[in-house]
Amino acid sequence: MIDVVLHPEFPPGVDDVLGAMGDVNLIRPSNDDDVAEALADRAPVLVTLTWKPEFLQPRLRWIAGLGAGVDQYPQDQLCGHGIVLTTAQGLQATCVAEHAFGLLLGLTRGLAQAVTNSSSGIWQSYEGFELEGGRMAILGQGRIGEEIAKRARAFGMDVIGIKRDTTDYSGHASQVVGPEHIIDVCEWANVLVVSAPANNDTRHAVSRSQLSALGAGWLVNVGRGSVVDEEALVEALTKGALLGAGLDVFGAEPLSPGSPLWGSPNVLITCHSASRSPRFSRRWANQFIHNLSALGGETSWLNRSC
Amino acid sequence: MIDVVLHPEFPPGVDDVLGAMGDVNLIRPSNDDDVAEALADRAPVLVTLTWKPEFLQPRLRWIAGLGAGVDQYPQDQLCGHGIVLTTAQGLQATCVAEHAFGLLLGLTRGLAQAVTNSSSGIWQSYEGFELEGGRMAILGQGRIGEEIAKRARAFGMDVIGIKRDTTDYSGHASQVVGPEHIIDVCEWANVLVVSAPANNDTRHAVSRSQLSALGAGWLVNVGRGSVVDEEALVEALTKGALLGAGLDVFGAEPLSPGSPLWGSPNVLITCHSASRSPRFSRRWANQFIHNLSALGGETSWLNRSC
Repeated sequence: MIDVVLHPEFPPGVDDVLGAMGDVNLIRPSNDDDVAEALADRAPVLVTLTWKPEFLQPRLRWIAGLGAGVDQYPQDQLCGHGIVLTTAQGLQATCVAEHAFGLLLGLTRGLAQAVTNSSSGIWQSYEGFELEGGRMAILGQGRIGEEIAKRARAFGMDVIGIKRDTTDYSGHASQVVGPEHIIDVCEWANVLVVSAPANNDTRHAVSRSQLSALGAGWLVNVGRGSVVDEEALVEALTKGALLGAGLDVFGAEPLSPGSPLWGSPNVLITCHSASRSPRFSRRWANQFIHNLSALGGETSWLNRSC
Repeated sequence: MIDVVLHPEFPPGVDDVLGAMGDVNLIRPSNDDDVAEALADRAPVLVTLTWKPEFLQPRLRWIAGLGAGVDQYPQDQLCGHGIVLTTAQGLQATCVAEHAFGLLLGLTRGLAQAVTNSSSGIWQSYEGFELEGGRMAILGQGRIGEEIAKRARAFGMDVIGIKRDTTDYSGHASQVVGPEHIIDVCEWANVLVVSAPANNDTRHAVSRSQLSALGAGWLVNVGRGSVVDEEALVEALTKGALLGAGLDVFGAEPLSPGSPLWGSPNVLITCHSASRSPRFSRRWANQFIHNLSALGGETSWLNRSC
C-alpha cells in the first residue's frame, strides 16, 4: 500500500479511479494546509492540478499532475530535490482537438445566431463558410496540434504547424516551421488555431501584426489565454478584418464580466472546457498505474517532466 | 448563344456566374408565369430549384437543377418527353458534411449553453462528450455520407453506412448494410447521422423503434426532414434516453412556430442551411459549362437524372 494525497481540486472521476486501486491508500484533505500536512506526515505521492510552496515536503517523491501544463510548478526546485513530476499531457489531445473543431465549425456554420434564433423560434437560413480547400495554421504543433491537423486534413484543408523544433518532423501537418515565420504563415492561412502552452516565448505570440496578417480569417484558441493579446483581438474583431474567434482560454480566468468578448456576435466563448471529457479519469488512471510501477523502479516513467 | 431561363429562386451568385458566360443569353423572369412564358416562347434551358407543371413546354430540352434532390420533378413525364434533368448532387457534399459535424460537435461540446451563457457573461465550465472511439451510423451512404464518414474516421470513430445497394462498396465507412438492418445498427451506434434523400422508402425511416435502439446517443439530420418522425423524436428527447439532436431539415419547412423543438435545451436547430456555401455557384457553374457541351452533343452529361 502506498499513501497518495489527492488535492481537493480535481477533474470528475479521479477520486473514484484512485479509490478503486487496491494498492493505493487514498488520503483526501479538504484544503491546501491539510494537503501540506499529509505530505509532511508521510505521503510520498501528490495528485494535483495546482501547486503551493508548502507542498514541497521532504518525503514527497512524485507529483502526479492532473493537467497538461507545467507552468505552475517550480521545476528547477523539484529537479533539485529529485522529485518526479508527471503530467497529463496528451491524454486530453483528442478531446481538445474535438473542441477546437466544435468552436471552428460553430463559427463557420453560424451556430451562435442559430441558437439565439432558436430560443425565439425564428426561421432564418444562413450561408456559412466552407473549410474544404482552406488553409490552417496551428501554433503549437505538439500532441494536441497533431490531433487537430489530422482532422483538418480530413476536412480537405492544408495545414502548416508552427513549433520550436522542426527537425525530423513527421506528422499530419504538410509542413512545420519555426516561430520566426509566424507572420508569413498567418498571411497564408485563413484559420489560425492556437494550441501552444503558456511560457515566456508564447506570451502574446498572437498580437496586432499576426491578426492583421491573418486578415479575413478565423482564430481558435484552445491553448492558453496568454498566447493571444486580447486587446489586439478585440480590435481585430471590431475594427479589423477578422471574421470571428472561438475561445476556450483567456488571459485572466474567469473572463472578466466587463470583457467586450462576452456576447460579441462573431465570438464563441467556452469556459476552459476543451479538455474536459468523461473519458479523462480512466485514461489518467491507466497512466498513473503505469507510473506507480515506475516509482517502484519496475519500468520507465510516462509523461515525466522532471 | 443559347437562351437560358433562370427561375427567380436561386442560391446567391448563380445569376452572376450565368451572366458572365459568353455563350449564354440569360432570361430572368420575375415569377412562375413568366418562366413558363419564356420557355413556351423559345428557351430550351431552365435553371431552377423548383418545378411547376406549366414549365413543361415543347421547346424545353434541359432542366439544369440547382438542388441535390429530384423529388419535386415529374421524372417519368420528363423522360417520356426526352427532356434531360441534371442536378447539383454531390456539389454540396463537403459543405453538408461540415455542417453535420458542426451540429454534432455543437451538441457534444455544449455550444448552445455556451452561447446563452455568453450573452449574459456567465462563466460556466462544461464537461462535454468525446467522439473519439465512438460509433457512427450514417443513414444514406451516398456522396454526402462518404464525406461525413471520411471526417468521422479522422475523429477516431468507427462508421457503418446504411444504403440500398451494398454491392462492391469501397468507401470511408468500415462497412455498409441494407436498410433492413437499421435497428441493429442503431443499437450499435452512439451517433446516427441522416443524409438520406426524401422518398417513399426513407419516410419516417427513423421513428420510435430506431430512436429507442439508439438510446443514449446523438441524432443529426442533414438529409431530409421526412426521414425522421418528429413526434417520435420529441418523445425520445423528452421522455427517452436520446442525448440530443442537431437538425437542419424538418418535416415541414419553415418549422412551425409551435414546434416543441424550438429552444429545446438538447436540440440545435439550423434552418436548411447545411448545403449553403459561398463556393456553390462556382462549382455549379463549372458543371453547367460542361453540360452545355453535352447539350451540344460534344460530351456526356454530368449528374444526369433522366
